[in-house]
Amino acid sequence: MADNEIISDGKEKRICATGDPGMVCIHYKDFATAFGGVKQATIKNKGKYVNRISAITFEALGKAGIATRFISMPGEREQLCRRVEPVPLQFIVRNRLAGTTAQLLGVRNGTPISNVICEIRYKCEELGCPMINEDHAVALDIVSEAEIAVMKKTAVMAGKVLKALFHEAGIELVDFKMEFGRTSDGAIIVSTGVSPDNSRLWDEQTGDILDKDRFRHDLGKVGTAYREVMERLIKITEQ
Amino acid sequence: MADNEIISDGKEKRICATGDPGMVCIHYKDFATAFGGVKQATIKNKGKYVNRISAITFEALGKAGIATRFISMPGEREQLCRRVEPVPLQFIVRNRLAGTTAQLLGVRNGTPISNVICEIRYKCEELGCPMINEDHAVALDIVSEAEIAVMKKTAVMAGKVLKALFHEAGIELVDFKMEFGRTSDGAIIVSTGVSPDNSRLWDEQTGDILDKDRFRHDLGKVGTAYREVMERLIKITEQ
Repeated sequence: MADNEIISDGKEKRICATGDPGMVCIHYKDFATAFGGVKQATIKNKGKYVNRISAITFEALGKAGIATRFISMPGEREQLCRRVEPVPLQFIVRNRLAGTTAQLLGVRNGTPISNVICEIRYKCEELGCPMINEDHAVALDIVSEAEIAVMKKTAVMAGKVLKALFHEAGIELVDFKMEFGRTSDGAIIVSTGVSPDNSRLWDEQTGDILDKDRFRHDLGKVGTAYREVMERLIKITEQ
Repeated sequence: MADNEIISDGKEKRICATGDPGMVCIHYKDFATAFGGVKQATIKNKGKYVNRISAITFEALGKAGIATRFISMPGEREQLCRRVEPVPLQFIVRNRLAGTTAQLLGVRNGTPISNVICEIRYKCEELGCPMINEDHAVALDIVSEAEIAVMKKTAVMAGKVLKALFHEAGIELVDFKMEFGRTSDGAIIVSTGVSPDNSRLWDEQTGDILDKDRFRHDLGKVGTAYREVMERLIKITEQ
């Protein structure tokens, strides 16, 4: 595959080949989508914020001993990452009940919980990305029983690491989504960093929403919130 | 509570108090409901068949060391059982993908699987009895983490025992639902037997459906199928 050849070109990011077949370059765009693409808009500099925030979370995971695809951040909107075959599952780790899960269980949005919840969704647009469990994923032949157990434990462990990281920045990590990929040698590693695009982040003092829910629910100042998260994380990680 | 006082009176069964506060009498009715009560009909002798079949399955579980509420079958339509506080969860054990789960995963009804699936549903009519996972149940404060792990393991173990039992009778146990209850001393035990009302049973030779799907999908001969299951189980258990 030639250098810079496009591997996938989504609304929010583009993945390109590099000179090294084991590496890709991920470019983050200034574009936001929600509700399965029904809602769309350009958010100025969002690509820069998401790139930097997710790089910081990738690095925090790496330091905690969790293998990720992240290598480096060669540009303001670019990440150099290991090339992986995506595992079509999403792991959603929750420290409170919010969004669709609050609805599912009939509780108020933001209900505190005494445990940590890890949900699994089957990444299949045609089926509406349904919530499934470990046994379903094994039955679908997506992963082995041992693999999914490791992924779930890794997602929960990543949740602890990132909760502490955001807490240092005065932000509560309410929930986040994590995906995994397989490298050419078969190892399963974390393939997504965490950013306001794929998490719920609430200001610990004010309760202000600092994530994509601002875009979803027309709360305004979307870019400002993303920048705020980035600046706070830079401040604590550069200390 | 007075002897024979009604504790609960559903469409398909009635639970009454007995002289012993730790015991109840379950009476099975000749009535069938489906799709949350939208479809209803009287099926002659269904109560007798369900009583006998579920008693046989309860006994098979007991012999395999699984604690259940079942004590004895004092009448053709009656079971004497331990009184329990119901745990509002349903465990669905699947040896093939059928029904709603086949739809959820986008596969053909009856798709074989290499593993056993155990699903958990939250028994809450208002919410439509949604599929949840162990973490949700703990967050809802219904059960502890240890309790739900034991329930899930017990349901899967019960599945092995009952699959073998039905197989002896030439019937494939495609899936079944299991519920649990707490006794006054806090023990969690199996509170439901298995019958064509809460399982999928297919004739191993002909593939004929021998369960409530005959009623749900207007296939006719509902009572005949239930009686067939009962007679085959009596034959193998009385050997």
